[in-house]
Amino acid sequence: MAATTTYTSDSRTRLLDAALKVIRAKGYSATRVEDICEAAGLSKGSFFHHFTSKQHFAVEAAAHWSSVTGSLFAAAPYHDHADPLDRVLGYLDFRRAILCREVPEFTCLVGTMVQETYDTCPAIREACERSISGHAAEVAKDLELAKRLHAPDATWMAESLALYTQAVLQGAFILAKARNGSRVAEDCLDHLRRYVEMLFHHPHPRSDS
Amino acid sequence: MAATTTYTSDSRTRLLDAALKVIRAKGYSATRVEDICEAAGLSKGSFFHHFTSKQHFAVEAAAHWSSVTGSLFAAAPYHDHADPLDRVLGYLDFRRAILCREVPEFTCLVGTMVQETYDTCPAIREACERSISGHAAEVAKDLELAKRLHAPDATWMAESLALYTQAVLQGAFILAKARNGSRVAEDCLDHLRRYVEMLFHHPHPRSDS
Repeated sequence: MAATTTYTSDSRTRLLDAALKVIRAKGYSATRVEDICEAAGLSKGSFFHHFTSKQHFAVEAAAHWSSVTGSLFAAAPYHDHADPLDRVLGYLDFRRAILCREVPEFTCLVGTMVQETYDTCPAIREACERSISGHAAEVAKDLELAKRLHAPDATWMAESLALYTQAVLQGAFILAKARNGSRVAEDCLDHLRRYVEMLFHHPHPRSDS
Repeated sequence: MAATTTYTSDSRTRLLDAALKVIRAKGYSATRVEDICEAAGLSKGSFFHHFTSKQHFAVEAAAHWSSVTGSLFAAAPYHDHADPLDRVLGYLDFRRAILCREVPEFTCLVGTMVQETYDTCPAIREACERSISGHAAEVAKDLELAKRLHAPDATWMAESLALYTQAVLQGAFILAKARNGSRVAEDCLDHLRRYVEMLFHHPHPRSDS
């Protein structure tokens, strides 16, 4: 390391932010360390100051993804609803609303990484699993409260339904990639919302309609 | 090409069959031509006799996937039901039943390839889109017949619902990869089945239960 070189936490964040952009567009395996450095405007020296390997970087990128998306969802307006079912439906409407971008901008970093590496890199698989299940657990909290209030005798489990919402989102992203546009993903979110409404015997108009 | 070397259609099929095994386990980008040749027990000469590039191979592998899975579904017993709704529910039960394997054996070649290459390789994206939409169109035929018979006034479209079934499957595969087991995917198929039953106001027990 040259005496004049400084490595700041800001450079670490810039590298992790670059992962969101580059890996979501190119996939994990096709992304080279050089691609991340170029997107971040930083050197390989900086990369290897912060991360021991591309794999270590991917594990940290999954945690960074959880942090960035966690902040996005925590600040979203659907939390303001008093009724937990309105919060659940508001969450689904929010997920649908943020599809109005280019495909690489709305798809999921950890869904992409686990698709490629689940069998070859357990550390990345586990980091992606933590990210997906951690977000599902947040969704499950409101689903559990909504179930107690509106469907206490239902046989489905809130945790299972929360994981299902994430499966629908992940699959919707794949169809959006195949069709090169968000329309099919929006349709999938409409089916998911109808399912949740029917589980609660509770048709609600979308908050943006 | 050496005078003694022969390249048969059988070697082409062996290479394409190897794609199903290797790419589903390692992902598309991480798979090298050498990995395909090794799994098929064939030389790179044979590979490049049949395919001009790895990308050309991937496009042909997507078509091969449609052919192999098309035969599997065409031969499945759910087609024997007289009522199209029973065929739809039988299809979902069949999809759930074939999850009882190791993760790399039940996940989707074209879902994996399009996840990685949608933005960097239009030819592969389009080949994967043809495969997914082609299969969805088969599912849509029975859904359309079932809708005419059992839910003629419903506002949902058979084609959209068929695509939704494929999104749920693709997302269920991602969660199964993250969790390293099929259980979560089975749960997703149960949610999907319940949704279809509710759309038809028609609870049906699973054919294997």
